[in-house]
Amino acid sequence: MTQWLKAKNKLTTEHMIHVANFEKIEINILMDRLEKGEIVIPANVNRKFDFKAIGKEMSVKINANIGTSEHCISIDKEILKMKTAIKFGADAIMDLSTGGDLNSIRKALLKECSVSFGTVPIYSVISDLFSKNKDISEMLPQQLFDEIENQAIQGVDFMTLHCGLTEKNVDTLKNNPRVLGIVSRGGSILKNWMAYHKKENPLYDRFDDILKIAKKYDITLSLGDALRPGCLADASDPAQFAELQTLGELVKKCKQEGVQVMVEGPGHVPYHEIEMNIKLQKALCLNAPFYVLGPIPIDNAAGYDHIAGAIGATLAASAGADFLCYVTPAEHLCLPTIEDVKQGVIAFKIAARAADLARNNKKYHCEDLEISKARAAFDWKKACNLCLDPENALKRKYETSPDLDECTMCGKLCAIKVAKDSQ
Amino acid sequence: MTQWLKAKNKLTTEHMIHVANFEKIEINILMDRLEKGEIVIPANVNRKFDFKAIGKEMSVKINANIGTSEHCISIDKEILKMKTAIKFGADAIMDLSTGGDLNSIRKALLKECSVSFGTVPIYSVISDLFSKNKDISEMLPQQLFDEIENQAIQGVDFMTLHCGLTEKNVDTLKNNPRVLGIVSRGGSILKNWMAYHKKENPLYDRFDDILKIAKKYDITLSLGDALRPGCLADASDPAQFAELQTLGELVKKCKQEGVQVMVEGPGHVPYHEIEMNIKLQKALCLNAPFYVLGPIPIDNAAGYDHIAGAIGATLAASAGADFLCYVTPAEHLCLPTIEDVKQGVIAFKIAARAADLARNNKKYHCEDLEISKARAAFDWKKACNLCLDPENALKRKYETSPDLDECTMCGKLCAIKVAKDSQ
Repeated sequence: MTQWLKAKNKLTTEHMIHVANFEKIEINILMDRLEKGEIVIPANVNRKFDFKAIGKEMSVKINANIGTSEHCISIDKEILKMKTAIKFGADAIMDLSTGGDLNSIRKALLKECSVSFGTVPIYSVISDLFSKNKDISEMLPQQLFDEIENQAIQGVDFMTLHCGLTEKNVDTLKNNPRVLGIVSRGGSILKNWMAYHKKENPLYDRFDDILKIAKKYDITLSLGDALRPGCLADASDPAQFAELQTLGELVKKCKQEGVQVMVEGPGHVPYHEIEMNIKLQKALCLNAPFYVLGPIPIDNAAGYDHIAGAIGATLAASAGADFLCYVTPAEHLCLPTIEDVKQGVIAFKIAARAADLARNNKKYHCEDLEISKARAAFDWKKACNLCLDPENALKRKYETSPDLDECTMCGKLCAIKVAKDSQ
Repeated sequence: MTQWLKAKNKLTTEHMIHVANFEKIEINILMDRLEKGEIVIPANVNRKFDFKAIGKEMSVKINANIGTSEHCISIDKEILKMKTAIKFGADAIMDLSTGGDLNSIRKALLKECSVSFGTVPIYSVISDLFSKNKDISEMLPQQLFDEIENQAIQGVDFMTLHCGLTEKNVDTLKNNPRVLGIVSRGGSILKNWMAYHKKENPLYDRFDDILKIAKKYDITLSLGDALRPGCLADASDPAQFAELQTLGELVKKCKQEGVQVMVEGPGHVPYHEIEMNIKLQKALCLNAPFYVLGPIPIDNAAGYDHIAGAIGATLAASAGADFLCYVTPAEHLCLPTIEDVKQGVIAFKIAARAADLARNNKKYHCEDLEISKARAAFDWKKACNLCLDPENALKRKYETSPDLDECTMCGKLCAIKVAKDSQ
């Protein structure tokens, strides 16, 4: 039984107790939210780890994408990226590998992963075809379902599946041309296959087959937004919202079967349209948890898209988004390095922490108060150690002013000191 | 006559025409806003440069603080910081130097500065006292006014003056204890002086003397918030708002005299209190332009406070703040380096650009559309050159995949390519 079905049957599980303790929430409230599908606990029945819940009244969670590409294949590097992401606060990891022996890479990562683990199964199917010099059109739908089950057996906790890219929604896209068309890899593959075969998207057509696998292993479905906008000019257009409506219908099917589900969202969105996007998703998708990619509110920040993304993500999470997929400084330019992963996670940790206060109408987290007290007491070691990146904070302070109570910014003019002198 | 008085007397100036063209706004609307004190053009009568307007219906402007401290004194380095800030889009520079020969440093910077130039005159007075081994209590009020006039003659365009720190507001602070008390350097100096002499703040007491100087040189007053919160726990407290109310009264006096004025704001503010802070300032201060420092919405991001600050600043500017003082990665740790200055400016440029769209209910800037078209055409050179930091974008793309149409993230799986293949 999925966590959802257990909640429905009033069965309290170890998972639920763990989550309720972590979130400092009453177990019956948690079970109520689970039953309503307002939260998910992505945790494959075949895996034990430090699982967390995503959704209403839960703290905001962040995901870090890692993975090889055909141009950069190194399992060691990806393991290090994963460990770096988790060290700096990632609540989930998605392995988006597309280069090398994907099955081995996934196994190696899963073995070392202490948080929820997600994938996009179609990448494996296509990478396999490409390695055999085959074309997208040669993909057999059954390969998709076999791969989903294969990864479910391996222990994957949540999977992005672009089930909402129907022929009808592709038509809506055609009738409302975009600057950048489709920017979802999974979406573009499916569109390509559908156009060649003149057939419906198998992930939509055979959604019941997906539900069966998801139910068996308690996979949380992450309904991908193949039609997410790839630039501000394409944001909030008919194709995007047509697909969102389809995803809402699929959420309903998941609920009927007791399958855990969340919905993915954009992408590139003007700042003043972010709140509307979140509220619309919640309305159309029966309050399922919303998993957004950024969003970034300007298009020309490449090299600094982690900052643009964190700006959009904070507003999104404050407005109700529950799960933030990080963006790294490498976005739009190249595969992220280990340092990019670190920068991306920290930027989104800031976003999640800021939004948590807004969601709960709280003034500060206990770390915020502790660090402020340490600052008032000139206890630099404590203050630095409470930072999101203690090593960096300690280094900057002690390399510049190892022996000073103050820092090199203010010196004797330190406001805290000067003000205290007059008390 | 100040620009404000000229607008009142229906005199169209070169400054106004320049600004109206830059903002693509009708000159009569601009003059109306100027007359109402809803916008300012910080431009000393003694200086010619690329001035810009700050306030309602203007694009959001950003300021970069630079300056020496007793521990780091190098004019060359500060000039380089200033040039770096302007290169990456700073609309104004504040020289917050507190170390070395401040008069020479200021002159050297002013000579090279192509944007609005601001200072905090009390720093010079105190640094001078300290260099003579004197104490804050030995400051003579007249020294403050002399220094304000000295800097006005030199060409400073706007000055932060902590005129709202009255004895009454200090009492409010005492009656409502804080974790971090006063974190404004100017504020802490004045509080120290006031406590020693048991006298009113001279900048409040003799505000008319300030108005006279400001009027003569068309200095834009930036009313400093000495009682801004230094941590989330201290945000939105009685002392902060008592001072804001006093600043509102002083804005009224400025308007009566035709002196350009803006108001400074926090600091450290929980994300969900940012909008309220902006709206309150606008209400209490007769819609004077609002100049905010960040704000940062969590306290433990030291090393990454430029990101925390940009998150708060975007929301603030969307809600009506007009002028954003950047925060660098060095904030709370040390004096910023040239690289810190660059990082801070870029983060706040992202904030300003995102907020500009929100303020004008616009979908995208023309650069956003151009870069998206370049991406669709795989014109990497053009796309990178349209970025906020073209050098960095070009480097990352061409160092990783010099010969590829795609980047190393997706390779053959590039969604834009795959989707196009099926058209």
